[in-house]
Amino acid sequence: MSKQVNGFSKLDKEGKIKWLIANYFNNDHAFERTLKRYWNSDAQLQQLHDEFIENTISNYYLPFAIAPNFLINGELYAVPMAIEESSVVAAASKAAKFWLERGGFKAEVISTTKIGHVHFLYEGTHQALHDFFTNAHYSLLQATSGITESMRKRGGGIKSIALIDKTKDLDNYFQIAMKFETKDAMGANFINSCLEKVAETLLELAGTGLEGNLQVVMSILSNYVPECIVRAEVSCAIEDLGNINGIDAKVFAHKFKQAVKIAEIEPYRAVTHNKGIMNGIDAVVLATGNDFRAVEAGVHAYASKNGRYSSLTHAEVTNNEFKFWIEVPLALGTVGGLTKLHPMVKLALQMLQNPNAEDLMKITAVAGLAQNFAALKSLTTTGIQQGHMKMHLMNILNQLGASFDEKNTIAKKFENQTVSHSAVTQELENLRSN
Amino acid sequence: MSKQVNGFSKLDKEGKIKWLIANYFNNDHAFERTLKRYWNSDAQLQQLHDEFIENTISNYYLPFAIAPNFLINGELYAVPMAIEESSVVAAASKAAKFWLERGGFKAEVISTTKIGHVHFLYEGTHQALHDFFTNAHYSLLQATSGITESMRKRGGGIKSIALIDKTKDLDNYFQIAMKFETKDAMGANFINSCLEKVAETLLELAGTGLEGNLQVVMSILSNYVPECIVRAEVSCAIEDLGNINGIDAKVFAHKFKQAVKIAEIEPYRAVTHNKGIMNGIDAVVLATGNDFRAVEAGVHAYASKNGRYSSLTHAEVTNNEFKFWIEVPLALGTVGGLTKLHPMVKLALQMLQNPNAEDLMKITAVAGLAQNFAALKSLTTTGIQQGHMKMHLMNILNQLGASFDEKNTIAKKFENQTVSHSAVTQELENLRSN
Repeated sequence: MSKQVNGFSKLDKEGKIKWLIANYFNNDHAFERTLKRYWNSDAQLQQLHDEFIENTISNYYLPFAIAPNFLINGELYAVPMAIEESSVVAAASKAAKFWLERGGFKAEVISTTKIGHVHFLYEGTHQALHDFFTNAHYSLLQATSGITESMRKRGGGIKSIALIDKTKDLDNYFQIAMKFETKDAMGANFINSCLEKVAETLLELAGTGLEGNLQVVMSILSNYVPECIVRAEVSCAIEDLGNINGIDAKVFAHKFKQAVKIAEIEPYRAVTHNKGIMNGIDAVVLATGNDFRAVEAGVHAYASKNGRYSSLTHAEVTNNEFKFWIEVPLALGTVGGLTKLHPMVKLALQMLQNPNAEDLMKITAVAGLAQNFAALKSLTTTGIQQGHMKMHLMNILNQLGASFDEKNTIAKKFENQTVSHSAVTQELENLRSN
Repeated sequence: MSKQVNGFSKLDKEGKIKWLIANYFNNDHAFERTLKRYWNSDAQLQQLHDEFIENTISNYYLPFAIAPNFLINGELYAVPMAIEESSVVAAASKAAKFWLERGGFKAEVISTTKIGHVHFLYEGTHQALHDFFTNAHYSLLQATSGITESMRKRGGGIKSIALIDKTKDLDNYFQIAMKFETKDAMGANFINSCLEKVAETLLELAGTGLEGNLQVVMSILSNYVPECIVRAEVSCAIEDLGNINGIDAKVFAHKFKQAVKIAEIEPYRAVTHNKGIMNGIDAVVLATGNDFRAVEAGVHAYASKNGRYSSLTHAEVTNNEFKFWIEVPLALGTVGGLTKLHPMVKLALQMLQNPNAEDLMKITAVAGLAQNFAALKSLTTTGIQQGHMKMHLMNILNQLGASFDEKNTIAKKFENQTVSHSAVTQELENLRSN
């Protein structure tokens, strides 16, 4: 028995589990049974999921839910969301319904350019490098023609290539910065393949045509995509907001605007404000088989682009109109990756009427805006805990094995009482001992 | 038939699915079958997952995998990871093994303080507010005693309460900023409950004891947690790095350091660099039932704290020593939330020997550091595509329904050829027509 292992990846799934149970679970096979309870009964389907990544031993369930009633540019959508956090789907659905009755969401894609770099060090005169690049840049592009062929057929490809001098920031550091249009693909593999080919060609050409040592450090796309932007918006006459949780429309509109202003100027608030937006965005990103780490990194970096971390949404209350909008970078794909492989992703995309990447950018941005509207609406009126606590209570009761009747009785008791694990346990014990 | 719906949340699961299939899938019941193929055969277990959030209709599978051989502060761990992206677990496992043979990872928690605010507007003299707060702050704390009781028993609670003047940034804007120690809980519910109680009490006290209008805008924790920091590190003698992918240890060490330096000074690179770190961190965050949106927001805001988005990891090559470390804010919990509810989360925590929150912070930071080490190792030597492409190829072949033999034959063909969907399709067609 040893907690250290050689050749683990070579073991089959049963072998991996056997090793794990022996060495980390004292051979308690209850854990093996738990792992296997989550296997799909269809062995072929399970194998498909096992092969998505390495060392897979089971499936991790995220709830797959839908938020209906999203009216976006005049089209109705039921939006698929995969997320573990309670209240998110409920909030999205409520916000969708609220804006459905007020003209819905408008969304537009501002730009779809992605970027990548060959990062290299060069010891020599800047003029020599500049002249070399002027001569070489067409050959660098040419070298990628095999890789870009099918993308070019779809209307995408390389949009530009430029030499960037970064020596003010780091000795000898230059970049070849390339911009890409990747159409309905997220494009990471495409971009990285192009960049690695350019780097390889750069080294070849520099070997004979450039004086001074040139060393490629790395070639890779950037997940910072400030030129791949989508904007989503809602607006209505202030009076059409109606009475919100007991608060007059005009008072609400101004309070809402103040809450957004605070997120614009206070990073401590902005981070949580944007976190709420990402609850909506990531749930769609996950359900549609996109990479939420890429999206998260790009979004939060964008939120800090002016030197101080700030809100992604903005609000305006003018001429009796309430307006609320988001501008956010989203590099998403509807082809490639998991989109055709994961049956639930295929289903999610079908539910969205098989959107292209731009449509999906719009829907996803709207989910983020809706989430933020719902969060600010709660925060500025009833407080955030009222909704959270209802779900929290149910989770605690489930954990304690409460029956349907017990849940109902105790839910009533906690309508005006703070929910805590100990208080709920106590109430359930009281109820059962009566 | 209508794509718009009233009372959707009140429908039972079958009713929701029926509505969805009728209105968004033209009554094509193949989609209903797909949704149900992902239901767990144990109805009670399925119900548990359905109740985590609202409007659940199925489960979204993320592969649940393990990366063994993590030596952290002298303890061996097999790290559970839930993630859909190929190469992440393989890279983590390789990095773990590499450092296992070189003394392993060292990790320490620097601080565990969390923060939240009552955001409010006050029209009146600053002196009056200041005097009011000086008198009131003990009563504000007192008001939370019922909420904090059980947390105080565990050694946590409210650490400080302060009045912050933000009127330079926004007219009339002040905060009550509170710091918290939440021990093994992530603490969002606890912190928000305290803040809402403080806000309620503030309004009561101000009603009689403060001249000038005071309006609470909102009360909420911050996911920006620059005082909840963990550090993880690896180091060894440069020569002990050995030959890395055909590159001499000394050359590699310097190139690696340059790659980190570039991520420190170039935001376009930093975003992708940190995205790779988050591949490791989020996989553990998900598997252990924590909230990855909260972690992502806090981490990326921290990466931009000095006004320019920058790398979370750093490297040093001195005195013949190679050193590589990360410092990252991680507000994680090992109690509350999904930790006791989701059977796979319970299993993941058990796999990690039931860590407390500080242990989990260390393990998670190490997963991020390992991921970044593996990514930089590939990027600066073979390039990132070699590993990615192997998995990409397998995914394409699975999608095309290739047999085991076909996969092997074609994998060999693509060892030195760029993988693209069309090229693989072509090769498979060629193979099958031979």
